[in-house]
Amino acid sequence: MKPTLSSIEKQLLDFAKARDWDQYHSPKNIAMALSVEAAELVEIFQWKTEAQSASLNEQELRAARHEIADVFLYLLTISRVLGIDILGAAQEKLELNAQKYPVESK
Amino acid sequence: MKPTLSSIEKQLLDFAKARDWDQYHSPKNIAMALSVEAAELVEIFQWKTEAQSASLNEQELRAARHEIADVFLYLLTISRVLGIDILGAAQEKLELNAQKYPVESK
Amino acid sequence: MKPTLSSIEKQLLDFAKARDWDQYHSPKNIAMALSVEAAELVEIFQWKTEAQSASLNEQELRAARHEIADVFLYLLTISRVLGIDILGAAQEKLELNAQKYPVESK
Amino acid sequence: MKPTLSSIEKQLLDFAKARDWDQYHSPKNIAMALSVEAAELVEIFQWKTEAQSASLNEQELRAARHEIADVFLYLLTISRVLGIDILGAAQEKLELNAQKYPVESK
Repeated sequence: MKPTLSSIEKQLLDFAKARDWDQYHSPKNIAMALSVEAAELVEIFQWKTEAQSASLNEQELRAARHEIADVFLYLLTISRVLGIDILGAAQEKLELNAQKYPVESK
Repeated sequence: MKPTLSSIEKQLLDFAKARDWDQYHSPKNIAMALSVEAAELVEIFQWKTEAQSASLNEQELRAARHEIADVFLYLLTISRVLGIDILGAAQEKLELNAQKYPVESK
Repeated sequence: MKPTLSSIEKQLLDFAKARDWDQYHSPKNIAMALSVEAAELVEIFQWKTEAQSASLNEQELRAARHEIADVFLYLLTISRVLGIDILGAAQEKLELNAQKYPVESK
Repeated sequence: MKPTLSSIEKQLLDFAKARDWDQYHSPKNIAMALSVEAAELVEIFQWKTEAQSASLNEQELRAARHEIADVFLYLLTISRVLGIDILGAAQEKLELNAQKYPVESK
């Protein structure tokens, strides 16, 4: 069965509950943890040229996959504890961006 | 119509194409941009106590909502350019985490 | 009179004392603030090529100068509250790096 | 002999020259590396309370010392490649901050 956003969110919540981890999950702490994972993603690319960053080897790609997952899981967690609907927030931001950066007419 | 992960991904791709922005979207650059947005999320909380971070006022909550959306949009973009299935990556990471942090028996 | 590391440290301490700011200066908070300033430095460069990043215009250079100062002031503050001698720490790290990355013989 | 800011800067420059590392030292890359080290500093504190962050054990303190040194060495390197006098920048910023945050009269 393929995972969905809902199934991931459900598992994440169960995971935190089973371990009683929400006591550590203040928005402040999760935001910090998220930024640390974002930095671990950056670390993969930091000494590469832009071209090299687009042709990772298998091991680097696996590392990137893990760091992306880590950022994503914290992003879902902070959204949950703040009561934010992440898809609604993304939709709203896409619309703001479309106004802010109109397509140039040719 | 409620947004879905697929509808967000589709709009993001169309957005980048219409503006010819993929030329800037090396994984290196997107990772940097993502980490900058993560820091903007951290900034909301940095001088708050953990308790305060859990009771944001309306304006702070809106700011958090925007920063979460920004991180999310870059996360979907870097996943796309690296060819990573973000839900599959999250599912895999959840399973690794479950092994790494077993629930303590009482 | 040219500033020295000691004169900067002295002013920083006086500044925090006069405003009673050390109540906010837990190492956790200062580390967060430092990472936010580091991200503001990154932001200047994020969409530039490496070559472009080396030839900033006057306004960008001034921005970089301010962000570098901000990171530095937080670095001196966290060193102070943790009781760390920053020059000693740097000297030690240089020696470790020299062992870790020996100069290749030709 | 106690290290000074100048002796650290001198060793750092010699270190980069001896290894021909300035080819990697675009401001963009150094800013990224600096932000990654800042995140490693944050990581030490992320699950601690503020009070706990102020009473590190010996091992954590050593880790903090290393990360502070790493941030500092990158900060001196980016200052060098951008031609920025870090003490002058810090002095200027302190004066701006004093204007921005005046001491409250009682």
